[in-house]
Amino acid sequence: MAQHPLAQYLEAVPDFPKPGIVFSDISPLLKSHFTETIDAMSALFTEAEWAEIDCLAGIESRGFIFAAALAYKYNKGFIKVRKPGKLPNVAASIEYGLEYGSDKLEMQKGDGSKIVLLDDLIATGGSMGAAASLCEQVGYDVVGMACLIDLASLNSFTYNDMTVRSVIQFSD
Amino acid sequence: MAQHPLAQYLEAVPDFPKPGIVFSDISPLLKSHFTETIDAMSALFTEAEWAEIDCLAGIESRGFIFAAALAYKYNKGFIKVRKPGKLPNVAASIEYGLEYGSDKLEMQKGDGSKIVLLDDLIATGGSMGAAASLCEQVGYDVVGMACLIDLASLNSFTYNDMTVRSVIQFSD
Repeated sequence: MAQHPLAQYLEAVPDFPKPGIVFSDISPLLKSHFTETIDAMSALFTEAEWAEIDCLAGIESRGFIFAAALAYKYNKGFIKVRKPGKLPNVAASIEYGLEYGSDKLEMQKGDGSKIVLLDDLIATGGSMGAAASLCEQVGYDVVGMACLIDLASLNSFTYNDMTVRSVIQFSD
Repeated sequence: MAQHPLAQYLEAVPDFPKPGIVFSDISPLLKSHFTETIDAMSALFTEAEWAEIDCLAGIESRGFIFAAALAYKYNKGFIKVRKPGKLPNVAASIEYGLEYGSDKLEMQKGDGSKIVLLDDLIATGGSMGAAASLCEQVGYDVVGMACLIDLASLNSFTYNDMTVRSVIQFSD
């Protein structure tokens, strides 16, 4: 499958954040082709789907970038899924396992809005799955999930029968 | 001075993140009036000023929200000013004092682009000043600084003779 043209602006950084990991740095892409990147993410959903969405929820902290730009583009609300201790009036939190140790996400109370969850990258789906579950727990209706880069190749992760839509797919 | 109408959607949360502090929660505002918030921030600069700006730099993590939405609105590049350990290929870092302890910001190498720095809130100007200094150190030209909320009232903080522009001002 031909790679998306925006993939050429990512930078592969070996041994970051630790030896043996090749980190896919989105910094050069966001600096040189930000509008194109956001427009490519918009195209993951149809206009009819966008019309049904109330709010975009970004997973801290790179998910904020995509959720904010798309919320502005489509005149939607913006919601934060945050790391522990950052948010007042937390309604619920969720802990999830990482390769080593665990991480935690927190949210305020929802109101039944239909939301799409955004992050920069999905690998095993751990944080996206935890965030989706947390969104429903606080009272949002998750109608979609999207990210810029899918490291595990298409359809590897599903939540409530939904797959995570992505612009760029890398498979080993 | 009359308060900006968007200020009514902020929520004052007493004793967060610690006793005696009143936290100004932007969550309800970003959920119900995101477009209006971003448009109010755009209005802090003239169209002639926007035309001169190459990139918007967001200070992690709430600064990402405003920098991303404005970068999309004006078709500019997006740059991250990050907390320690998150960014590969760090060109420089800066440590700055907080009320208790210190914090650190990191950036990749710049290229002479004219940038505006964005954050959600300015109090003493510690992180905004550190970020501005770091931007110039890595090779950007800081032509403006803006935030949604100024807690210390107008013109309390300057950097290279520039003040931080803000939509909502609170003074004690």
